[in-house]
Amino acid sequence: MRNLLLISSSRVIGFKYLEVAQDEIKNVLSFVSTVLFIPYALKDYDAYLNTVTQPFTDFGYDIEGIHEHEDPVEAVNKAEAIFIGGGNTFLLLKTLYEKNLLGAIRKRVLENGIPYIGSSAGTNVATCSINTTNDMPIVYPPSFKSLNLVPFNINPHYIESPYKAVHKGETRDQRIAEFLQMEEAGPVLGLREGCMLRVTGDRAVLKGINDAKLFQPGKEPKIIKVNEDLSFLLNN
Amino acid sequence: MRNLLLISSSRVIGFKYLEVAQDEIKNVLSFVSTVLFIPYALKDYDAYLNTVTQPFTDFGYDIEGIHEHEDPVEAVNKAEAIFIGGGNTFLLLKTLYEKNLLGAIRKRVLENGIPYIGSSAGTNVATCSINTTNDMPIVYPPSFKSLNLVPFNINPHYIESPYKAVHKGETRDQRIAEFLQMEEAGPVLGLREGCMLRVTGDRAVLKGINDAKLFQPGKEPKIIKVNEDLSFLLNN
Repeated sequence: MRNLLLISSSRVIGFKYLEVAQDEIKNVLSFVSTVLFIPYALKDYDAYLNTVTQPFTDFGYDIEGIHEHEDPVEAVNKAEAIFIGGGNTFLLLKTLYEKNLLGAIRKRVLENGIPYIGSSAGTNVATCSINTTNDMPIVYPPSFKSLNLVPFNINPHYIESPYKAVHKGETRDQRIAEFLQMEEAGPVLGLREGCMLRVTGDRAVLKGINDAKLFQPGKEPKIIKVNEDLSFLLNN
Repeated sequence: MRNLLLISSSRVIGFKYLEVAQDEIKNVLSFVSTVLFIPYALKDYDAYLNTVTQPFTDFGYDIEGIHEHEDPVEAVNKAEAIFIGGGNTFLLLKTLYEKNLLGAIRKRVLENGIPYIGSSAGTNVATCSINTTNDMPIVYPPSFKSLNLVPFNINPHYIESPYKAVHKGETRDQRIAEFLQMEEAGPVLGLREGCMLRVTGDRAVLKGINDAKLFQPGKEPKIIKVNEDLSFLLNN
C-alpha cells in the first residue's frame, strides 16, 4: 500500500520552505506523530535538520534526523514516516548505498505502508533511477538505480529553459529527449516547481499549483494539469 | 608533449559551428592533414560526422569518423589528431570505456604528442573526471574518471544562472561549490561559451572571446581573462 508524496522542490518563488506542499503533507501524514528526516543530500546534516524542523513543527509533527540515530537501518525499521529532502542526488544516493538503506526504506514503504515524502533529490531517489536528475555528478554512486517506489522517472524543478537567447547549452527538453533515446528509458514526468505527485496505492494524481509535462519514448510531450490522474504510470 | 585545445562549446551565439575557435583549431592542427572525429556523445554518428565535416573542410582539413573504422583502437593509434565533440558526457564516457579507448587516446596524446581538440562533453572527458559536467546522467558509465589529459576539472558552458528570479533550482555556482566540498575535489575551471583552454606542453592559456571563472576549494572564485596564463593548474 503505497503512500507517497513526491514534491518537485521545497523552495518555490513566493512561498516559505515546503509551504506550497503543506496540505498534501498533512494528508500523507495522517495518523503520524514523528517523521524521520534523511539529510544525506547535503553535507551539513545538523544545519539541514534545523532548516526542516520549523516547517514540520508548524505543520504539527515532530521531526528527527536519521544521523542522530546510532543505527540508521534500525531507525528506518522503526520510523512512522520518512522525509528525504533535496540537495545533490548523487551524494544522496551514494550515501543511501553506503549505509545499506535502500532495501530497508523500500520494505518499510512498500510492505509496511509508512508514508514517504521526497522533495527534489528525495523525489529522484524515490523513482526507478536517478537518470533524470538535474544535479552535478559530484560523487560516483555504485549504481544509478534507486528506491523504485514508482516504476518511472521524474525530472524535478522542470522548466522550459528560458535563456535560450543567451546560452547554447542543452535545454531541459533536449536533455530529457536524449534520455528517451536510450534503450532502458521509460516515461519521465517533468514536475514544475510548485507541483507534486501524490500516490496512494495504485492511484497517482498531480497536485500543487503548477502543471507538469509528461515525456514518453516515441510520443509528443504532454501537459498534465493539477488533479489529473496519472495512475497508468504505476503499471509500467 | 601536450597539444590540446579544450573548447567550452562548439555553438556560440552569433557564430557558426566551431567558428569562434577557428584560429586556435588551425594553430593546434599545424602539420595535420586528417582529423579523427569521435561522435560518441550523440546517438546518430553519421549525422554528427556530417555536422562537423563542413567546418573542418572550410578550415582546410580532412575529417573521418572513428565509427567508419573497423577497429577504433587502431584508428586512434594511427590518428594524426583527435576531435571529440559535445553531446551527452555520460554516453560519451561510457562508450569510450566500452570500446577500450581511454588508454589508447591517452597514450597517443600524452606520449606521441598528437593534437587533441575537445568541445563541451569532449572537454569534460579530457579532464581528470566528469564530475563537473552539466549533462543529465542518462546512462551509467563504469567510472567518472576520464582521460586526465589535464589534472583538474572543467565546467563547460559556464554561466551565472540568469533566471534565479523565476526558478529555485541550484545555480551553476552552487553546484560547483557543492563539488568543492567533496574530499577528492580540486580546481574547477568554468569556461564560458566562447572561451577555450589552449595547452602546449606545460603551458596553459585562456583563449577566445569570453573570460572564465576559476573555482578552488577554500578560495573565492576568480575571473580569468583571455590570454591569462593558467599553467599552474597543470602542476596540481
